[in-house]
Amino acid sequence: MAVTDMREEKLTKLKGLLAEANYMDRAVRVLAWDRETYLPEGGAESRANQLATLARMLHAASTSDEIGRLLEDLTSEESDLDPDSDEARLLLVEKRDYEMARKLPAELVEEVSRAGSEGLVAWHHAKEAKDYSLFVDALKRNAEVNRRVADAYGYADRPYDAFVQIFESGMTTAQLDTIFSELKEAIVPLVREIASRKDAVDDSCLKQYYDEEKQLRFGLEIAERFGYDLKRGRLDQSAHPFTMPVAVGDVRITTRILPNQLDDGLLSTLHEAGHAMYEQGVDPAFEGTPLSGGTSAGVHESQSRLWENLVGRSRPFQDFLFPRLQSTFPDQLGKLDVEAFYRAINKVQPSLVRTAADEVTYNLHIMLRYELENEMLEDKVDIGKLDTIWKERMEQYLGVVPQDDAEGVLQDIHWSTPGEYVFPGYTLGNMIGAQLFRRIRAEIPDLDGQMASGEFGQLLEWLRSNVYHHGRKFTSNELMQRITGEPVGTAAWIAYARDKFSAIYGI
Amino acid sequence: MAVTDMREEKLTKLKGLLAEANYMDRAVRVLAWDRETYLPEGGAESRANQLATLARMLHAASTSDEIGRLLEDLTSEESDLDPDSDEARLLLVEKRDYEMARKLPAELVEEVSRAGSEGLVAWHHAKEAKDYSLFVDALKRNAEVNRRVADAYGYADRPYDAFVQIFESGMTTAQLDTIFSELKEAIVPLVREIASRKDAVDDSCLKQYYDEEKQLRFGLEIAERFGYDLKRGRLDQSAHPFTMPVAVGDVRITTRILPNQLDDGLLSTLHEAGHAMYEQGVDPAFEGTPLSGGTSAGVHESQSRLWENLVGRSRPFQDFLFPRLQSTFPDQLGKLDVEAFYRAINKVQPSLVRTAADEVTYNLHIMLRYELENEMLEDKVDIGKLDTIWKERMEQYLGVVPQDDAEGVLQDIHWSTPGEYVFPGYTLGNMIGAQLFRRIRAEIPDLDGQMASGEFGQLLEWLRSNVYHHGRKFTSNELMQRITGEPVGTAAWIAYARDKFSAIYGI
Repeated sequence: MAVTDMREEKLTKLKGLLAEANYMDRAVRVLAWDRETYLPEGGAESRANQLATLARMLHAASTSDEIGRLLEDLTSEESDLDPDSDEARLLLVEKRDYEMARKLPAELVEEVSRAGSEGLVAWHHAKEAKDYSLFVDALKRNAEVNRRVADAYGYADRPYDAFVQIFESGMTTAQLDTIFSELKEAIVPLVREIASRKDAVDDSCLKQYYDEEKQLRFGLEIAERFGYDLKRGRLDQSAHPFTMPVAVGDVRITTRILPNQLDDGLLSTLHEAGHAMYEQGVDPAFEGTPLSGGTSAGVHESQSRLWENLVGRSRPFQDFLFPRLQSTFPDQLGKLDVEAFYRAINKVQPSLVRTAADEVTYNLHIMLRYELENEMLEDKVDIGKLDTIWKERMEQYLGVVPQDDAEGVLQDIHWSTPGEYVFPGYTLGNMIGAQLFRRIRAEIPDLDGQMASGEFGQLLEWLRSNVYHHGRKFTSNELMQRITGEPVGTAAWIAYARDKFSAIYGI
Repeated sequence: MAVTDMREEKLTKLKGLLAEANYMDRAVRVLAWDRETYLPEGGAESRANQLATLARMLHAASTSDEIGRLLEDLTSEESDLDPDSDEARLLLVEKRDYEMARKLPAELVEEVSRAGSEGLVAWHHAKEAKDYSLFVDALKRNAEVNRRVADAYGYADRPYDAFVQIFESGMTTAQLDTIFSELKEAIVPLVREIASRKDAVDDSCLKQYYDEEKQLRFGLEIAERFGYDLKRGRLDQSAHPFTMPVAVGDVRITTRILPNQLDDGLLSTLHEAGHAMYEQGVDPAFEGTPLSGGTSAGVHESQSRLWENLVGRSRPFQDFLFPRLQSTFPDQLGKLDVEAFYRAINKVQPSLVRTAADEVTYNLHIMLRYELENEMLEDKVDIGKLDTIWKERMEQYLGVVPQDDAEGVLQDIHWSTPGEYVFPGYTLGNMIGAQLFRRIRAEIPDLDGQMASGEFGQLLEWLRSNVYHHGRKFTSNELMQRITGEPVGTAAWIAYARDKFSAIYGI
C-alpha cells in the first residue's frame, strides 16, 4: 500500500472513532437540554445516573489508546499539509483535546457529572427558596472537584489557567487579569460620569405589564429575522436561558420571559439566537469531528453579545424594531418615540442581575465572578459566607446590594455544575464582538442602513464566512489576528462604549 | 472470603454492569422521545447517528464476556434462593436477555437503529403526502433487516417466533394463531348481528368541533384522576401517541388531538396513561436492573386497554365522566344524556383506523397486521403492492376501504422501525385485561360504584400490587397463572364483549 493510502486509512479510522465520541457527546447534550426544559421532577435522579454513565463511556471512548496511536502516527510524520487545511487543523485540535482528556481520571469525570446533576437540583431548590444555605454544600463540593480538575490538567502559573486552556485556548489567567484591570480603569470613571446624569434616561416604559406569550413570539420573530433558522432549531423556556447545539441541524435556544420587564426576555432571546446562529453556521462537513461547534467561550459570547447589543441595542436597529414593538404592544408603547425607547433599553444603572445589566456595568458583574472563581479555586474565600461576601463586593463594585440570595449569589446557574469556568468568556465576548464590529463597519459601509430596515443578510454572511464557518479550526486569538490583524484586546470595546454612552448621556 | 461473600461480590459486580447498560438504554429512550416530540427537522440525520452510536455501545455493554461469566457463575452453582425471589428472577431474566442479545451481531444492531431512524423519516413524509410509494423502500429494507434478525435469534417453527420470544416471552406464533382464530370465530358473527342493528347507536355527538386545548387538558385531568402521577410524568403531543418510560420517576406520554373527533384524543390519552401507570408502579428497587419496566407487550397493552376500555368506556364510569365533559363542552353536549353518550363512545362500526376502532372490531385490525407481518417476514407478500393488498384485506375483513394510504397502510408508526413486532400485544392485552378484570370484580365487589364516583384508588392499588410492582419478574403466562389460575386465553374477553355489546345493541 502506498504511504498516502495508509495515511488515508488511518485518518478514516481516526475519524470513525472521533465520530463515535462526538455523537455520544451530542446525546449527552440532548439529555442536558431535556433536564432544563421538560424533565419531570421525579426523573432527576435517573437523569443523573444516565448522564454519569454516558460521561464515563464518552471519556473512555475519547481517550482510548487507539486514538492516541493514530494521532501519534498521523502527526509525527513529515507532511506537506497546509497548516490551515481542515485536516491539519483537525489533527491539531484533536491532539489538544485528547491530551487534556487523558489527564482526567475516569472517576473524576464521573464525579464531575454527578456533582453537576446534584448541584443543579440543589441550585434550583436554593434559588426557589432564595436561600443560599441550601446550596453551600454543593458549591463547596464543586470547588473541591474543580481543584482536583485543575490539578489533573496541570498549570504553570495559576490554577485557573487549567480551565482557561479549555474554554479559551491560547490565553492565560494573567492576560485575563490585564483585560479586567484595563476595563475597570475605563468603566469606573465612565459609570461615575453617567451617575451624575442618571436622570437623563427614563426606562419606566419597559417596566409595564407585557403579555408573556406575545413577548415570546415577538422575540422569536426578531431572532428569525436576524437569521436564526427554525428548521434547524427551536425556542423553549427555562429558568436560565441557554443554547444547546445538538447538531448543525439542531441548535436549540431557551429564553426566560418576565411579565414586567420587556427588555429582559427580548434581549435574552436575541442573545441566545446569536449563539445559535454561530453554531448553525459551522461548516456542515465538520459534523461528527472535533472541528464541529464554536471555538471558544469568548468567540461564542462575542456572537451572542454582538446580536444582543451591537445590533439589538443599536440606534439604527430601533428604527426597525420599535414600530413593530409598538404595534404589538400599543397600550404600553403607543405614545413613546423611538429615541426614548433607544435610550430606555440602553439605560446605564448599576443593578443586581448580570443578565439584565446594561452594557457598561456588565463587565463589572463578570469581574466579580471571575475574582470569586479564582478565590474558590485557590481556597482563599470562605464558601460558607459567599452570600455575605457577594453582597459586600456588589456594594463595593456597583454600589447596590441584593435583598435576597436569588438576586445575589444564586442568580446564575453556572456554579451549580463543576468542570468548567466560563464567565470570563462573556467579557472576552464583548471585546471580540467590538473588534469584529469595527472590521465589519469598514467592510459593510451601509451596515446602519441595513439594520434600520431589518436586513441582516450581508452581516450574517460576513460572520458566517469569517467566523462561523471555521468552527473550531482557529483559536480566538488566531481568528482575531486573521480578521483584524491584532489579538483579543480591550481598545475597540472601550472606544465603542465611550462613544455610545457619551452620546446618550451628553457627556 | 466466605462463599456467600464471594457470591455477594459477584452479584454487586453484575448489577453494576447491568446498571450501566440500563442507564444507556434509558438515555436512548430520551433521544427517541425527543425525536417524536421536539426534534427540529434538520436534526434528524444527526439523531440517527447519535442513536446508532448509542445502540452499538449499548449492545457492546450488554453482551460483554464479563457479564456472561458472572451470570454463569451465579446461576450454575447450587443455591437455596427462593425461585420467586427478586435475585433469582433477576438472574433468570438477565440470562434470557443476555442470551438473546448475544445472538445479534453488532453490525445488525446498528443497522436496526439506522434503518429505524431513516424509516421514521420516510414514514412521516409518506404519511404527510398520503403516498405509500415514498415508504416502500424503507419497508422493504425493514423486512429484510427483520429476516436477518429472525435468523440471528433463531426459531424452531416460524420466523415470527424469533420476535414473539422477545415481546411475549413464553408464547409462540402457534398460540397466537389459535387466539386469533378463536377471536375471528367469535367476532365475525357478533359484528354481523350488530351490523343488522347499526342504527341503534348514534355517535354524531362526537363529531362536532371541540376546542383542542380544552380536549388536551380534559384528558390529562382524567388521566390524573386515574392515578397518573405528573410529578413523574408529562403529556405532550405527537403524530402517533406513545408512552416513553425513561425511569420509574419519568414516564412520559403523548397524545393526538383531533378537533372533530372527541373520543380519539381522550381515549388515546387514557390508553397511554394506562401504560404509564404500569411503569410508574414498578418496584423502585428495580431501577437500573433488568427487572425494571413492564414485562411484555401483552401485559403492557392489557393496562392501556384496561384503563381505556374496561374503565374508560364502561357504563358506570360515564356517570363520573359525562357531567364533567358536559360542563367543559356545554354547547356540544348540553342536551345529550349519559346513556346516549355511553352508546356513542361504544358504537361498533367497521372503520379504517385501528386506534379509533371500537372494542369489537379492534382485534380484526390487529389480525390483519399480524398476518401481514408474518407474510413480510416469510417473504410471501409483495411489499411493493402492500397498499393495494391492505385495501383488499380491509374490504374482506371489515368491509371498508381506505381512500388514501394515510388512513390505510401508512396509518401506524410501528413498521417504520425494524427490530420488533408488537401488534399482537394489543390483542393479547385485550385478552389479559379481560381476564384480570374478571378477577378484580371478584375482589372489589363495589368496583362499579367506585368508577361511577371517580374513585380509582382501590383498583390502582390492586393492579400495583398484583401486576405493576413485579416489573419483569414474571412472564404474562406466569402472571395470569398466579392471579387467575389459568394462562392467557380468549374466553374472558369473548364473554365480556358478548355481554357488553349484546346489551347495547339489544341482541
